[in-house]
Amino acid sequence: MVRYAKRFEQLTSTDIADLLALIAKPDIISFAGGLPAKELFPVEDLKQAGIAVMDEMGVAACQYGSTDGVLPLREKIAARMKAKNNIDTTAENILITSGSQQGLDFAARVFIDEGDVILVESPTYLGAINAFKACEPKFIEVPTDDDGMIPEELEKILATTENIKMIYVIPDFQNPTGRTWSLERRHAFMKLVNEYEIPVMEDNPYGELRFENENMPALKSLDTKGLVAFLGTFSKIMVPGFRLGWVCADKEMLDRFNTIKQGADLQTASLTQLQADKFMDMYDLDAHVAKIQEVYKHRRDVMLAAMKEYFPEEVKFTYPDGGLFTWVELPDYISSREMAPQCIAKKVAYVPGASFFPNGGKDNCFRMNYSCMPDDKIIEGVKALGEVIKANLK
Amino acid sequence: MVRYAKRFEQLTSTDIADLLALIAKPDIISFAGGLPAKELFPVEDLKQAGIAVMDEMGVAACQYGSTDGVLPLREKIAARMKAKNNIDTTAENILITSGSQQGLDFAARVFIDEGDVILVESPTYLGAINAFKACEPKFIEVPTDDDGMIPEELEKILATTENIKMIYVIPDFQNPTGRTWSLERRHAFMKLVNEYEIPVMEDNPYGELRFENENMPALKSLDTKGLVAFLGTFSKIMVPGFRLGWVCADKEMLDRFNTIKQGADLQTASLTQLQADKFMDMYDLDAHVAKIQEVYKHRRDVMLAAMKEYFPEEVKFTYPDGGLFTWVELPDYISSREMAPQCIAKKVAYVPGASFFPNGGKDNCFRMNYSCMPDDKIIEGVKALGEVIKANLK
Repeated sequence: MVRYAKRFEQLTSTDIADLLALIAKPDIISFAGGLPAKELFPVEDLKQAGIAVMDEMGVAACQYGSTDGVLPLREKIAARMKAKNNIDTTAENILITSGSQQGLDFAARVFIDEGDVILVESPTYLGAINAFKACEPKFIEVPTDDDGMIPEELEKILATTENIKMIYVIPDFQNPTGRTWSLERRHAFMKLVNEYEIPVMEDNPYGELRFENENMPALKSLDTKGLVAFLGTFSKIMVPGFRLGWVCADKEMLDRFNTIKQGADLQTASLTQLQADKFMDMYDLDAHVAKIQEVYKHRRDVMLAAMKEYFPEEVKFTYPDGGLFTWVELPDYISSREMAPQCIAKKVAYVPGASFFPNGGKDNCFRMNYSCMPDDKIIEGVKALGEVIKANLK
Repeated sequence: MVRYAKRFEQLTSTDIADLLALIAKPDIISFAGGLPAKELFPVEDLKQAGIAVMDEMGVAACQYGSTDGVLPLREKIAARMKAKNNIDTTAENILITSGSQQGLDFAARVFIDEGDVILVESPTYLGAINAFKACEPKFIEVPTDDDGMIPEELEKILATTENIKMIYVIPDFQNPTGRTWSLERRHAFMKLVNEYEIPVMEDNPYGELRFENENMPALKSLDTKGLVAFLGTFSKIMVPGFRLGWVCADKEMLDRFNTIKQGADLQTASLTQLQADKFMDMYDLDAHVAKIQEVYKHRRDVMLAAMKEYFPEEVKFTYPDGGLFTWVELPDYISSREMAPQCIAKKVAYVPGASFFPNGGKDNCFRMNYSCMPDDKIIEGVKALGEVIKANLK
């Protein structure tokens, strides 16, 4: 009889797979995914970039390349991180990954032995939970509020817990809550991190999608001890189908990521790296991001207005300044998981909240995505959800 | 102080990285890599395929796709495996991976807990050794000869060893030896595998690059109990820079690979999958492979003739029927690792043999690649190597 590795005891597939299956049905209004708006993809420009790559450096696009990635792309990423996140870095500190999901997988493999502890925001990104579980960690959820992780709670845990090997956070437009950490919280967090010297994985897929107010400095920009690895991606500002992300970290830490990358898949595709790099040479990525911001801001406004109108007043939800998600909290006695089939019967889908708590619980919440639906669908879907919620009120 | 995972005690980087560094120097005649001949890359045809993809399905090339991969590509792979390897399979049994290196990484994660045993040919592919080490296995090397793994030796190990979780083999034009398993050995191997019910990873990157004699049936085609996973790749028959490989396995086993894939990087790039698929719609991949076969056969002939001429008769080497490599055996008292700097001083590089033995040893061998050098460089390089070897004879 074939025996599989022990990791599968934790790694029960696959909320994300179920989601993708839901998304695939054309008659469902899905607020469940985290898909970028496909009508904004710069298809023609990427096609022209592809032609230029094949004309000018076709052999390089076809051949093996170095594990860390294409140098001009890493240089552009370093410059972009300086401009957008105030992070002083260079190409040597960047490793190209196959999406930032791969950065999460590698992070676990760089730091985690079976039974080691990972601290996460409560709630946190379900794809990170899944990636980390392959290394069989224990999760400790750190309480959060509207301003981010609560330092006093974090300190209590740091002071009393053995074998904390890594802290995973999404300080900007968090997935699933849409919340952004305040400046004060960022400084308080880094003070504790420096004191306890625990590596931090700062996941920042949405940071450039800010609709209003000022950018917050990245944790990495406040990092004086080389403890923070910053995970970035082109999935939300260019296209996800190229699978291009990156890890930015100090050399000693990045060397470990490189070693893992080499065994994992040798390198990310030469073609997609060069094509994205050429796209940035030929076109204005910032102008493209501005277009995305405008559309998503509008859709956020439409969704929040519809929630205000159609959700009963017992329901709370977050007001994100950017990103893709808002987080809905029902009265305690309603289970979003049990309510989901009623919603799907009305052709509307969300992600039940329990998936975002690695240790379970908080079933009265759910995550809503507003980036990929037109106005009328958003309103229709929220209205239908509101009716189901009302029918579940006591 | 940052503490890294225990796996780095085994995972000392990085013979491959050192190789890539060597390859990068333009004045070195490198027989060290395993690079396809870049002058054969179908750059213009792939460009046209890329244009067609963007014109006809640009949004799909840019958007997230399913974890298992693009359906028409998986259908083509299934048909190709039937035609080339006599394997009866369908798209449902195929998972697209980011090169077959990723299939190796996943194999370890599907089957291996720390301390579990992996059986490998002695010698075996160093990239597989590296990928597997991330899961902290023990390796047992099974003795091989010119016909492949020796069944009597395998049986002894199977009968007396606990916790064997997987057997890794490359039956066609093996890396590093260039040897191909005989039909009789394949049947004897599968008989033992069926008896002991141990999963087999059949790595087949070179199978289509046969220069003469008949194809051998894949182990997967002889698999009656769903024990064999077949790892394929487009790297050697199309281009490596797209990072496209696949795993073919029975559903229960493939589901585990899918779960790992989801956490690892969600999916392989939509663009490269669709572009390779379109290339096969628009052009004749078999005709392209025939061209590669012809060129590599010629280069093998040139290299083996040069070795015959310039190597002293104390040196043995294999006569591969296909693939990319020949394996050179020096007199016992010469260390290929100690001889390497003398060769590099003469601007010639190979891979010292010890890298291919996970438990060390056999330092008097080295691996030679003939796929990516023009005739004059092959002859010049082999001649220089011959001189160094002669200078090391007692």
